[in-house]
Amino acid sequence: MRRVDVSLVGFGVVGKGLARLLLTRREWLQEQRGLDIRLVSVASARAGCIYAEDGLDIAGLLALAEQRRPLTELAHTQYFSSTLAGIEAFKSDILVEATGTNLRDGEPGLSHIRAALSRGQHVVTANKGPVALAGIELLQLARQNGVQLRMESTVMAGTPVLSTALEGMAGAQISAARGIVNGTTNYILSAMAEGRDYAEVLADAQARGYAEADPTADVEGYDAVAKAMILSTLLFQQPLGAEQVARTGITGVTREQVQHASEAGKRIKLIASVRRMSGGEVEARVEPVELPLIDPLAHVVGAMNALTLESETLSSVTVIGPGAGSIETGQGLLADILAIAGV
Amino acid sequence: MRRVDVSLVGFGVVGKGLARLLLTRREWLQEQRGLDIRLVSVASARAGCIYAEDGLDIAGLLALAEQRRPLTELAHTQYFSSTLAGIEAFKSDILVEATGTNLRDGEPGLSHIRAALSRGQHVVTANKGPVALAGIELLQLARQNGVQLRMESTVMAGTPVLSTALEGMAGAQISAARGIVNGTTNYILSAMAEGRDYAEVLADAQARGYAEADPTADVEGYDAVAKAMILSTLLFQQPLGAEQVARTGITGVTREQVQHASEAGKRIKLIASVRRMSGGEVEARVEPVELPLIDPLAHVVGAMNALTLESETLSSVTVIGPGAGSIETGQGLLADILAIAGV
Repeated sequence: MRRVDVSLVGFGVVGKGLARLLLTRREWLQEQRGLDIRLVSVASARAGCIYAEDGLDIAGLLALAEQRRPLTELAHTQYFSSTLAGIEAFKSDILVEATGTNLRDGEPGLSHIRAALSRGQHVVTANKGPVALAGIELLQLARQNGVQLRMESTVMAGTPVLSTALEGMAGAQISAARGIVNGTTNYILSAMAEGRDYAEVLADAQARGYAEADPTADVEGYDAVAKAMILSTLLFQQPLGAEQVARTGITGVTREQVQHASEAGKRIKLIASVRRMSGGEVEARVEPVELPLIDPLAHVVGAMNALTLESETLSSVTVIGPGAGSIETGQGLLADILAIAGV
Repeated sequence: MRRVDVSLVGFGVVGKGLARLLLTRREWLQEQRGLDIRLVSVASARAGCIYAEDGLDIAGLLALAEQRRPLTELAHTQYFSSTLAGIEAFKSDILVEATGTNLRDGEPGLSHIRAALSRGQHVVTANKGPVALAGIELLQLARQNGVQLRMESTVMAGTPVLSTALEGMAGAQISAARGIVNGTTNYILSAMAEGRDYAEVLADAQARGYAEADPTADVEGYDAVAKAMILSTLLFQQPLGAEQVARTGITGVTREQVQHASEAGKRIKLIASVRRMSGGEVEARVEPVELPLIDPLAHVVGAMNALTLESETLSSVTVIGPGAGSIETGQGLLADILAIAGV
């Protein structure tokens, strides 16, 4: 039985999704893959970092979180007052970074990832900020330290688009990627296509938990911009500043425009796109686009996401799947862990 | 610079597609991936096997094929009278099997693959027969010999569906796969949806080279059955005999049925499906199905293919892309070679 020790930073929706999967998949992973994944530490900004050399009791952790009690109540653990103190004090095989996304400076995730890679730990992250803002630097740091940095969950959660582009299509020389990479705006535009007003749909989405109380990051396209930055970094090794992505959100889209498009046999979608131009520079945009029905993206509705990859050898390949969610994002983290474990 | 030596068996549409890619991608692979892929031998039933320890002149090979002259005219090569004699006489890193598919007994590809794996060569194959008929045995043989067997191109050519299911979605525990895996029948059904008759469309497809002179393997669903057998083998480790796949082709589908479906807001598609039942057994079918427009598969037209993978963690993930073609299939072989090379 091979063993992989994992440290988890961030125990919110995403971190708990991974923890649940590690619990429910444990037997299957041991029997089918000959792999024992142990969660040896969990850190959160609120609780600090707890560590157990022989692995934490995941069911106990989830129960404490469920009861909104501090994780430090878990028995038989060592305690560190901060995540970075924990990262410095012991060394697991893989650090999983699942703190919240911060698109201004990538912190605190960026510091966590830098520290772990520098110490020769593999890193798996669902955190968009560090990859969007410093992906090239971090990948280089990983190479220098002989470890891997994987980030499937940063675009379309666990729906495999980054591994598909980089590994499944290896050698295809992708020239462009365009897609629906934000579930909230796609939910809103899909509902507007059925004849409802923006404001009404937004309120409904907020009530259902599909949209944040402050929906700016989604509806003004900032979340999609971060994903365009990640795609440019990974597909073209071209980092982009947020200001280099031409951005228009959906707040100006009216019910009339959506219905007019429908009548013309089209669908309005918020499309993020990156394209490598002949000179090597990257053109990146986030904007509402009228798509003809022949485009597979036109039929992606609700909270589903999709990405079309254009290449010389495969014309266009489209991947459609869920773009958010606790288990869905945890799934991407698990797939990355398994890729590093090589099983 | 790492070096990988490749032997190619079969120099038809698929083999030539890979050869062209190895030629046009050479510089990029060396510069971007630090990998030098050398084609050290090519074998075909007609020409026998030619070998050059330092790599064959690929441009020269393609020129000879273009002029319909025997490959043995290539200078500075060693000659073996048969593929198997060649496989026994020298050992490259990877054998690429690209001979024609034979769904009765898998030969001659099956013997080539067995021989190469037994000698400790990795194998990459685009040949459906051996994987459909003996996939479990061959994967076991690969494991016993510490080498890899990869087969991305056997389903949907180079569109990455097998790597997506097995690697990108690692740990997702796929419960079912259903899709459009035959381009000829999808081309015919798409044209019938525009109001044309089966016989007329078939004749047109034959004239354009989309359908064989004897279209039985496509229109009666045998090709899709082979792909269902491959999917069951790889996703569920459950080999199926062809007779275990319930099969209905498209020859009985009338223009009236297609139009009636359209009027009801549906599309008739030839769907191959495999599903793991609660008892562990696999239900496999190939049949025309009326799909509602909410199904992404309903919008896949012409020669494009698509596969939907159902799992607990990602609900449904759909991959749409080309399902045939020389460069498209060569692309899948190249991606498999790069995966084995680990670059």
